[in-house]
Amino acid sequence: MGSTGSIGRQTLDVVRLHPDRFEVALLTARSSSELLIKQALEFKPDDVVICDPSKWEEVRRALSGTTTEVHAGMDSVCGLVTGDVDIVLSALVGFSGLRPTLAAIGAGKTIALANKETLVAAGSIVMDRAEKAGVRIRPVDSEHSAIWQCLEGAAGNPVEKIHLTASGGPFRTWPRERIAAATKDMALKHPNWSMGAKITIDSATMMNKGFELIEAKWLFETPAAKIHVVVHPESIIHSMVEFRDGSVIAQLGCPDMREPIQLALTYPERLYLNNKKLDFAALGSLSFQEPDLERFPCLGLAFDAIGRGGNVPAALNAANEAAVAAYLEDRIGFYDISGIVSDCIDGVDFVAEPSPEDIFTTNDVVLRRADELIRRWLHS
Amino acid sequence: MGSTGSIGRQTLDVVRLHPDRFEVALLTARSSSELLIKQALEFKPDDVVICDPSKWEEVRRALSGTTTEVHAGMDSVCGLVTGDVDIVLSALVGFSGLRPTLAAIGAGKTIALANKETLVAAGSIVMDRAEKAGVRIRPVDSEHSAIWQCLEGAAGNPVEKIHLTASGGPFRTWPRERIAAATKDMALKHPNWSMGAKITIDSATMMNKGFELIEAKWLFETPAAKIHVVVHPESIIHSMVEFRDGSVIAQLGCPDMREPIQLALTYPERLYLNNKKLDFAALGSLSFQEPDLERFPCLGLAFDAIGRGGNVPAALNAANEAAVAAYLEDRIGFYDISGIVSDCIDGVDFVAEPSPEDIFTTNDVVLRRADELIRRWLHS
Repeated sequence: MGSTGSIGRQTLDVVRLHPDRFEVALLTARSSSELLIKQALEFKPDDVVICDPSKWEEVRRALSGTTTEVHAGMDSVCGLVTGDVDIVLSALVGFSGLRPTLAAIGAGKTIALANKETLVAAGSIVMDRAEKAGVRIRPVDSEHSAIWQCLEGAAGNPVEKIHLTASGGPFRTWPRERIAAATKDMALKHPNWSMGAKITIDSATMMNKGFELIEAKWLFETPAAKIHVVVHPESIIHSMVEFRDGSVIAQLGCPDMREPIQLALTYPERLYLNNKKLDFAALGSLSFQEPDLERFPCLGLAFDAIGRGGNVPAALNAANEAAVAAYLEDRIGFYDISGIVSDCIDGVDFVAEPSPEDIFTTNDVVLRRADELIRRWLHS
Repeated sequence: MGSTGSIGRQTLDVVRLHPDRFEVALLTARSSSELLIKQALEFKPDDVVICDPSKWEEVRRALSGTTTEVHAGMDSVCGLVTGDVDIVLSALVGFSGLRPTLAAIGAGKTIALANKETLVAAGSIVMDRAEKAGVRIRPVDSEHSAIWQCLEGAAGNPVEKIHLTASGGPFRTWPRERIAAATKDMALKHPNWSMGAKITIDSATMMNKGFELIEAKWLFETPAAKIHVVVHPESIIHSMVEFRDGSVIAQLGCPDMREPIQLALTYPERLYLNNKKLDFAALGSLSFQEPDLERFPCLGLAFDAIGRGGNVPAALNAANEAAVAAYLEDRIGFYDISGIVSDCIDGVDFVAEPSPEDIFTTNDVVLRRADELIRRWLHS
């Protein structure tokens, strides 16, 4: 799901490396019809979905005469992921990933989850349904894949602490005034990772790390108080797990999303990967710093949202989604993102144990509220 | 075995922390009668052995009226480790550890091995006997404990590379001329670890890292070509394992031998330990360098010995043992250690598949040869 995005394309790179090991059953894209057609011609899936219905005719025509059936709309995605597939890799962007992921979980499919917003918005529901369906969610996010790999040898020993590493993003060393004036082009220049626009802005605000903390809390059933964010600019240590004897297990690698993607697909087996390998002497050094909540208020807002729980993280996600979209359209400034998110989570109608309907309602209400704030921001 | 040395004392620290989990059956010491008596009065073992027979009367008298029986000599050690004990922690120094360790393995005891020279001198024999006796050798060396911990979650995936970290010792940044003139007091000042004299000098020459490479080869059945030494001055990353997808699993901790000691005793359970915990932001950074074989020729000699195999590593160990003893007695200079070792391994009567007798013979012959060289060195 989301085959034309950054994670989707890298997933198909992994498939291309091991043609004997994978068969692509389904590819879905939001609106990148041209790339979806190219992918379908190469990987010959049974089905493709182009979510944007206005592009359906174009894709259908291009794939006529092939064995691939062409569908349109998110409902088709939700239906097809319950079909004849072993693993569903969810690389959708934002809240849109929730519905089809729940559908795939309901059908008992193994989930390789790159779409962290699904867990941010609806962690309790997703994990609960996964448990009931006997579904294991395999993380694709590099930090969570790292934690997962570090926990493989835990032998039942309780986790004392998770060290969640953060690159610090493109503005790590910038003073607040300079960050305040940053354009989206500056924010989109991530120092270590090549990713989609939404997550790259989330990295620049460090909201991404807040989301990852929420994601880690759900995936590894670890209280947020035991998850510590540490800034590690080189992005070589992808995260670490500490036990009560002080022993820390870490997972490291050159930044390349194909490594966690591949492991999520082939777990527990590790296949060869043609990625760059670590050369520690050439690397020279790895460094660490405390995160700065002053310059990166989104991280503090995420901590708040986790502390309040219920539907507040869903509100956090919705407000952030609207604000980041507005920032990417040059409609608001960098620190307006945290301003809008702060306002939205403060004003949310609190639901302590949200149902799926509560989550969808919170998302809708907060998106509207955020859009209203953005319009007001523009006219003030 | 070796309860009055650095590892032995720290092992008893661990026992002291968890009195409900451990019972000390046997304590052995080479000649530190006073400390052995104190330890026996505190831990009430069934038996103690003082290897130096001239100290037996003193220990016997001090422990008369207790339930502890007092023995003398290494033969007593070899006999008693086959008795009613679950785990034998071998913290003897040098080649002397081989005989009692083989005795304990023969009796099917689980071995917690701190005495690396046992594997350097007789790796094939020790591992072969352990396999036949169904004995698992649990590493105590911090690097090998790290590799062991990293491999816990390997799930059968082959190891592509072991990154064996080295502090670089007290002379890491010194030019060769300054190292050449170093006194034993300078060599005994290890920057990170508080250890016994022999291993501290081995760290200064980096022979210790060569020994560890040989130890890792045997413990983890990994060809030496896949084990890479990387200098890491902070001694925080204790070692790392790399898989074919480029993923590296590392084990980290503040330098404190009680962590690997405790894990070797309680594996797979991890108990609480009152050691210093890692604070990455406070740490600031971790650095890495290539080892310098020019200034640390002992490391190169160890590589040579591994390459030649057979009884050459036993010769390496014996020559080093004699040379380090002479250096500690101020009889030779720092680079005379590598000179003597080089001469001894060049001149060894090669045995491709040594029996235990061949190993003991090699050890005796090389010790004599080294002593002769040391005497000549002194008169030249």
